[in-house]
Amino acid sequence: MDLTLPDAVVEPDGGTIVYLVLDGLGGLPHEETGLTELETAATPNLDRLAKGSALGLITPVAPGIAPGSGPGHLALFGYDPVRYNIGRGVLSALGVDFELRPGDLAARLNLATFDADGKVTDRRAGRPSDEENARIVAKLRESVQQVGGVEVFWESEKEHRVVLILRGARLSEDLTDTDPQETGVPPEPLEARSPDGERTVEVVRMVLDRANETLEDDPVANGVLARGWANFHGYPSIGERFGLRPVCIARYPMYRGVSRLLGMDIAQPAETDAGSIDVLADQLEDHDFAFVHFKYVDSRGEDGDFDAKVAAIEAVDALIPGVEALEPDVIVVTGDHSTPARFRAHSWHPVPVLIASRWCRPVDVEGFGERACGRGELGIFEAKHLMTLALAHAGRLGKFGA
Amino acid sequence: MDLTLPDAVVEPDGGTIVYLVLDGLGGLPHEETGLTELETAATPNLDRLAKGSALGLITPVAPGIAPGSGPGHLALFGYDPVRYNIGRGVLSALGVDFELRPGDLAARLNLATFDADGKVTDRRAGRPSDEENARIVAKLRESVQQVGGVEVFWESEKEHRVVLILRGARLSEDLTDTDPQETGVPPEPLEARSPDGERTVEVVRMVLDRANETLEDDPVANGVLARGWANFHGYPSIGERFGLRPVCIARYPMYRGVSRLLGMDIAQPAETDAGSIDVLADQLEDHDFAFVHFKYVDSRGEDGDFDAKVAAIEAVDALIPGVEALEPDVIVVTGDHSTPARFRAHSWHPVPVLIASRWCRPVDVEGFGERACGRGELGIFEAKHLMTLALAHAGRLGKFGA
Repeated sequence: MDLTLPDAVVEPDGGTIVYLVLDGLGGLPHEETGLTELETAATPNLDRLAKGSALGLITPVAPGIAPGSGPGHLALFGYDPVRYNIGRGVLSALGVDFELRPGDLAARLNLATFDADGKVTDRRAGRPSDEENARIVAKLRESVQQVGGVEVFWESEKEHRVVLILRGARLSEDLTDTDPQETGVPPEPLEARSPDGERTVEVVRMVLDRANETLEDDPVANGVLARGWANFHGYPSIGERFGLRPVCIARYPMYRGVSRLLGMDIAQPAETDAGSIDVLADQLEDHDFAFVHFKYVDSRGEDGDFDAKVAAIEAVDALIPGVEALEPDVIVVTGDHSTPARFRAHSWHPVPVLIASRWCRPVDVEGFGERACGRGELGIFEAKHLMTLALAHAGRLGKFGA
Repeated sequence: MDLTLPDAVVEPDGGTIVYLVLDGLGGLPHEETGLTELETAATPNLDRLAKGSALGLITPVAPGIAPGSGPGHLALFGYDPVRYNIGRGVLSALGVDFELRPGDLAARLNLATFDADGKVTDRRAGRPSDEENARIVAKLRESVQQVGGVEVFWESEKEHRVVLILRGARLSEDLTDTDPQETGVPPEPLEARSPDGERTVEVVRMVLDRANETLEDDPVANGVLARGWANFHGYPSIGERFGLRPVCIARYPMYRGVSRLLGMDIAQPAETDAGSIDVLADQLEDHDFAFVHFKYVDSRGEDGDFDAKVAAIEAVDALIPGVEALEPDVIVVTGDHSTPARFRAHSWHPVPVLIASRWCRPVDVEGFGERACGRGELGIFEAKHLMTLALAHAGRLGKFGA
């Protein structure tokens, strides 16, 4: 049983919910000013919204745990991120729109460069263009389609990123990574991590060997590195669980991948974040839950560029009136995790969250920020409870129990 | 699976963590001043540290539950205190450095005084000296070594406290206490609490009868009372679970016992609390996690002496600069439970906690105290999550999930 929601209480009719997810929103104080990125940003629209909203801080997985984007987003959508953890390979396959079937085994590959001794000289083969990537993947597709009764699929992601999917009986994800995560050393050998893995390891070794032979003389990438072996299992959908007609509006593949996993419709991505709001306007005509993803806030955090992260937040703030004009019943503004510029990586710090609806008990705050949210009506809570709160504020949850 | 930490993400390299545990730290407001013991104490060092730290309140076990020292400390070290609850007997055996083996059955005994009718006249036999205790235990050892195929061990604790350990096949802890917890009545009969206990109860009755016969004419204690029957099970160690090299610096046996159970190294105890900081300086040379235990704060709380508890807190505050001078990456200051002077016992009230590191989002507070911590960035959380937070602040946790 999924304790994030007693299932019986969902009401299929009710208000419209818009999730605005600023990836990596949470931050840490600037060493000089003592203010976080969000507290520093000029966000007149979010500040206005915050004054009438329910505020809080969400813990993505558990205290102290910095999540990847997969668990970060699963939790926002009401899926326990530990129970429903998705392997890297599956996430990548979903991100390139590959139609996974239950039991498929997927891995994330890097196109890489090796020297004459077989040592890795560049784990990303000089970050080839997407066109080069497509050329190399076409070569792999032509050369390796079936090995030992297993169907083999190769899919381009971006730059050096490729997804490998294997389809056959009883393939196990209990395999080690061959990516050594450093240069100047040979790839790690592929090994089984359990008796289940033993059955699979031979055929996967053959697939990787065939791939490396195929690329042997390629001028751009003369081999591959594999990591994140993962089997695909079906997930209960957002529609089934929450009675919603959900849509994902995301410009980056991985976020569409997670959304597809949960049964969301996937909107044609826009060219710009402002364009995503136009897509939202269209999609709300036949959806009642929309997830809009903004990537740059996280990217600038990972760059360690405090000011650029501030600017990325301000850019989203400017889009808020356009969302309000669509008059959804509930607007949620939050992130999937913190990416403090000072930390240059995903961190464990709780993430500010705002739920704007007519059913709030706002507290007196000056605007939207980590410390204001820490004083908010929602307190600090696990992200997996956010969906239930959003449903409640949209009038979509009935009474639990007699 | 232990949900206090998704195990895969621990990184064995990272910063040094020092836990300063003021036993029974949390308090209740003085009836005249409205300030707790910690809020009353002059703690310039802790106040300074608090201004730059992450603050919060920890719930040792669950809301409303006052923990014993065992569960209180287990939770601080990241062990779910309900799942990993340690029986009293095992805790006492560990506290006297007895090398327990899995399956051993241990109980805490009191040396006691009985009248001619077999009624308890003093549950503690007038609190004999440790020398008297050793003399009596030597008598028991000589007289009762083996009963019905079960090996029997007697160990001195302090004053009236003795530990009994039984070693044999299928000994069960499902036995009742014989200590009636009051005087003027005979001891409770030893009974089985389950079918498992039935197999054990006969042999244990024989052991206790033999002990009482042995002491029949002793001038100090003419019998024993038993409680806290507990089997020893191995625990996963802090080293295994968190990749740490941990050390315990505690002047009282029981805290060393809990630490030994979790695989900590045990430092030679110092004569004074100030001496414990010298020990800490030595131990940090080859450990990256140190637990320093301060007992008096709790003792003075149990005495009901508000002013003495304030003074005990101030005495620890004076040691803080010495800890800071060692430059650990993370300093945690907290308690294993509250012992409000006004309550004169362990209580359920959440305990102030401070995590000092460079990765905090401090809020504006005047110092370290219950109410300041209630406004802190960490909120109120279960103590079992403290270890994960400490590891994160020390850069010892990788990302969870892709």
